[in-house]
Amino acid sequence: MNINSTIETNRDRYIQELIDWLKIPSVSADPKFKEDVMRAAEYLKDQFIKIGMENVELLPTEGNPVVYADKITDPSKPTVLVYGHYDVQPADPYELWTSPPFDPVVKTTSVHPGGAIFARGACDDKGQVFMHVKALEIMLSENNLPCNIKIIIEGEEEVGSAHLGDFLKKYKEKLKADVILVSDTGIINNDTPCITNGLRGLCYMEVEVTGPNRDLHSGIYGGGVDNPLNVLCKLIGSLKDDNGHITIEGFYDNVQDVSAEERAQINQIPITVEQFEQSIGLPKTFGEKGYTMMEQLTIRPTLDVNGIWGGYTGEGAKTVLPAKGHAKISMRLVPDQSSKKIAEIFTKHFEKIAPNTVKVKVTEHHGGEPVVTPTDSIEYKAAEMAMEKTFGKKPLAMRNGASIPIVALFEEILGLKSVLMGFGLDSDAIHSPNEHYGLFNYFKGIETIPYFYLFYEQLRNAK
Amino acid sequence: MNINSTIETNRDRYIQELIDWLKIPSVSADPKFKEDVMRAAEYLKDQFIKIGMENVELLPTEGNPVVYADKITDPSKPTVLVYGHYDVQPADPYELWTSPPFDPVVKTTSVHPGGAIFARGACDDKGQVFMHVKALEIMLSENNLPCNIKIIIEGEEEVGSAHLGDFLKKYKEKLKADVILVSDTGIINNDTPCITNGLRGLCYMEVEVTGPNRDLHSGIYGGGVDNPLNVLCKLIGSLKDDNGHITIEGFYDNVQDVSAEERAQINQIPITVEQFEQSIGLPKTFGEKGYTMMEQLTIRPTLDVNGIWGGYTGEGAKTVLPAKGHAKISMRLVPDQSSKKIAEIFTKHFEKIAPNTVKVKVTEHHGGEPVVTPTDSIEYKAAEMAMEKTFGKKPLAMRNGASIPIVALFEEILGLKSVLMGFGLDSDAIHSPNEHYGLFNYFKGIETIPYFYLFYEQLRNAK
Repeated sequence: MNINSTIETNRDRYIQELIDWLKIPSVSADPKFKEDVMRAAEYLKDQFIKIGMENVELLPTEGNPVVYADKITDPSKPTVLVYGHYDVQPADPYELWTSPPFDPVVKTTSVHPGGAIFARGACDDKGQVFMHVKALEIMLSENNLPCNIKIIIEGEEEVGSAHLGDFLKKYKEKLKADVILVSDTGIINNDTPCITNGLRGLCYMEVEVTGPNRDLHSGIYGGGVDNPLNVLCKLIGSLKDDNGHITIEGFYDNVQDVSAEERAQINQIPITVEQFEQSIGLPKTFGEKGYTMMEQLTIRPTLDVNGIWGGYTGEGAKTVLPAKGHAKISMRLVPDQSSKKIAEIFTKHFEKIAPNTVKVKVTEHHGGEPVVTPTDSIEYKAAEMAMEKTFGKKPLAMRNGASIPIVALFEEILGLKSVLMGFGLDSDAIHSPNEHYGLFNYFKGIETIPYFYLFYEQLRNAK
Repeated sequence: MNINSTIETNRDRYIQELIDWLKIPSVSADPKFKEDVMRAAEYLKDQFIKIGMENVELLPTEGNPVVYADKITDPSKPTVLVYGHYDVQPADPYELWTSPPFDPVVKTTSVHPGGAIFARGACDDKGQVFMHVKALEIMLSENNLPCNIKIIIEGEEEVGSAHLGDFLKKYKEKLKADVILVSDTGIINNDTPCITNGLRGLCYMEVEVTGPNRDLHSGIYGGGVDNPLNVLCKLIGSLKDDNGHITIEGFYDNVQDVSAEERAQINQIPITVEQFEQSIGLPKTFGEKGYTMMEQLTIRPTLDVNGIWGGYTGEGAKTVLPAKGHAKISMRLVPDQSSKKIAEIFTKHFEKIAPNTVKVKVTEHHGGEPVVTPTDSIEYKAAEMAMEKTFGKKPLAMRNGASIPIVALFEEILGLKSVLMGFGLDSDAIHSPNEHYGLFNYFKGIETIPYFYLFYEQLRNAK
């Protein structure tokens, strides 16, 4: 494949076409951008037609449509299903942008001396989706497609992919494939490629502690009434011990041990504790004893209070003994913990430890399952070889501490594993003002993707 | 003294004059009632002039004026200084009142079959102040004043009496007296008189716990960062042990033991644990082990979280690992704890127990000192005899768990003890919609007050 020379020839056009797409403010969270969201979908559809994809269409959902395209060249070849999203986060606060979020410009930065496109969605995920469009364009123009290809680009990822589950169920047959390829994650830095081989799951709970039936005067009633806020604090405080170990009975029952090899790999990630602390102004890191910081951040479950409230929270002093206290508490999960199971044992535990001086109510918000991609699978190896080919060094396997619920959804509904081969950087400011995407990363993605197909097909054949 | 027959003769006028005063919305918290506050002061001044008090004037402060009057009949007689306030709480929410708060009406209730005046300030404190006005009217009309009298009725009690300290200092000479008489408290029920012989002090703190320098994504950072809300809960949870004992080092150092006799008296107060629980819909009372509920509520110090907040508190779920957590924590104090001292040791303790993974900031809000009136003092005995005379039974001594900072102020600046002889009921809904004051209580107060002067003078003479 003449990937690099083709990129060189078409470089300016590849940038311009992405910029034209980024100009369309496809903000899914805000109804006032509804038409723009549709325009962004149409723009992508036209691109797929232009480069020679087939069966291009907007598949309707209860919300924004999914852009679909495929190219089936040979039923005996493996089929790769590409996933991405064309919707973007809101750009607020606009005043913090150094250039308008929907008026993309290329600027150089210390991290990106070769330039970066500044725009909302430049990295997340329009820029990364467009790498696939251009990689497909190159392969199609050379008539060199190692695999069959199906691609779905949705328009509601930034608002929780609420209709994706139904969509996958409805089009299960149409979407039949061997593996899913997603570029919505990142690498460590431009010298250190990596592949995300695991994501944590999530179990998000809310608790309410009620004492008396109304707010009381803390002088008249103080001392004889167990204050629901004191109780709430005591209960939450007991959920972790001084070693950072979660005390909920049965919480670790299904936590799988991670191999020494994978732990060694995680610990190769070139971020020191001091760099980490400095990057977020932290006095000192803290995590579960017996694990390194990178392990705590990726392969171990967590329990965090996301919000707490109750009583008087205004200026000055009010001597109230409040009737109720509330907290939102979420747990990041690792294989093989189950979101439903953890919600159950959390509820049981919290109800059990609550004293009989209060009533507690525990409710569950949304959850998601942890996923892990074995690093010895064909698809992982193909991604690894592709990155090694273009970066000149073997990528690290990196578990990501966050959750991408769609990955578990793909596995559950389509029965397919995903390869998370993204090219963004943590410093790209996704979801923040001044989001940008390095031209290096954009072109490195375009260059790497065709090799994934090539090696994936080769490894499958060799099996 | 012909108190009862005089009351009988003037009954309707005594009610009407109070009602006319209650019609003036003297809300000190809201500037839009500024003129009404002045009108209420003027109305009271006119009353004092009408009944024959002398040196009647509005003494200016930096805020609302204090209404002053005196009647010095014989320098060799003891002098009683009466304190009260003519300002009232805001009446909001108006829609919960069954009749307009400043359009007083007399209605009967199950507690007050003889009728009660419904209006903001009916009990707190205009109704109780007016008992003194009418009691003085009776004594003056009979030319039978056992003591010299000075009276100060302020207009800022409901907004914290911010200027009272300066006022007392400025007029220290003018206010020279032997004892202070205050009617701003209550009795247990209309069959069970009591005298408030102690008030708890207050130390009100605010704590802030800071982890990272900004809110973080709980997936990417969770597990490696000590969550400030988890830490806050753990710290607060540790401030009391399972026996309800406060764990702050030195907290109980200056707590005085209460005599077996006083404890026995406190425990005579006819409220059962079940009645208490039922009255506030409480699953179960809780307090410091080793003390009865009534003791926990009155003679023991407390530690209550009055408010807590941090992170995401809206609808649904947001996976934030917050930068900061906050709480307001107040402690009710008993003799001889000092508000300043407790603020110091609280701060020291909280800073000491905080882990080095966070920064904590502890600040102090206003405080107040605990007070206790010995039940063997002349003034207490005089009040006790007065109530026994009119109620037909000896009043109980009752420590009130709340704080009235002005009482400590009187002691500090004027060097005078206060007698807290009030006639309200807990069910009078002061500070709430539908505040009211029983006609029984109003007239019982008018009847009782002259006996206080009589017995106080007799006991002083007998000494």
